[in-house]
Amino acid sequence: MIEPTLALYGDAYERVDRHLEELLSNTGVRYCLLVDRKGFVLSHKEAIWAPRPPALDSVATLVASNAAATAALANMLGERTFSEQIHQGENGTLYVESVGDEALLTLIFDSNVPLGRVKVQTKKTIAEVAAILKEISEMPAVELGDDFSQGASALLDDLLG
Amino acid sequence: MIEPTLALYGDAYERVDRHLEELLSNTGVRYCLLVDRKGFVLSHKEAIWAPRPPALDSVATLVASNAAATAALANMLGERTFSEQIHQGENGTLYVESVGDEALLTLIFDSNVPLGRVKVQTKKTIAEVAAILKEISEMPAVELGDDFSQGASALLDDLLG
Repeated sequence: MIEPTLALYGDAYERVDRHLEELLSNTGVRYCLLVDRKGFVLSHKEAIWAPRPPALDSVATLVASNAAATAALANMLGERTFSEQIHQGENGTLYVESVGDEALLTLIFDSNVPLGRVKVQTKKTIAEVAAILKEISEMPAVELGDDFSQGASALLDDLLG
Repeated sequence: MIEPTLALYGDAYERVDRHLEELLSNTGVRYCLLVDRKGFVLSHKEAIWAPRPPALDSVATLVASNAAATAALANMLGERTFSEQIHQGENGTLYVESVGDEALLTLIFDSNVPLGRVKVQTKKTIAEVAAILKEISEMPAVELGDDFSQGASALLDDLLG
């Protein structure tokens, strides 16, 4: 089974949440998504005035797959990766920026939102969120000792006869 | 066999060439590629000071496939297509903009080139190139009459006995 690279929950989740909230109110973007490189949504926020977001799961998958696909293009031009991708349509913009090596911050906003402001604010948010994600990835994994596995085996034997 | 959507040659080719040349000298970009939606290079230019371009054929293929792949994402956000895509790396930028429905103008430039200038100049070039491409696509196709096909058949019969 494919699992997210990062488990974002509890205190860390709430801190990330606050940073995304702040980014939304500072820039005026519609939707904001933190996605891991495999396409899982780690966290998301919608502006209060922006009803009916698109299917964010699908957007996340497509954004992650697109980021992976453009890696070949980046290498060809001598870049390690494209840290920033901007897709501009008639009515709005999809803005994707790398958060460390593991995640992507995706913003969706209307064409009247100034791109410059979004860029500046996003840089700040990314520095903060990247620090939180780094913390998480450095936390020791939960290890289940021998005791636990023996106890679980005994319990299963008991249950299944 | 896959064939380019557009055949750019002769007078039209030279006019496009001049426009690309002008774009290069006005903006300071390294490489400039006109690619059709299937990934064929229709025309390309390199700045004199920019030696060793990357494999432009491969870049063209990847740019076209990427543009097609992001169409799903555009539709999901209610856009017809993303008319402008910017991929920013550490050292440089890959800038792709639609030229009508059939072609893509791709620019590769270093990070010291101001994006704003590139955008303004590109808009101008695209209007001019799009007009030329439209002219071509509206030209009547060369039709070979009955005479030609009879003549060719006779010639073949003659040749092959």
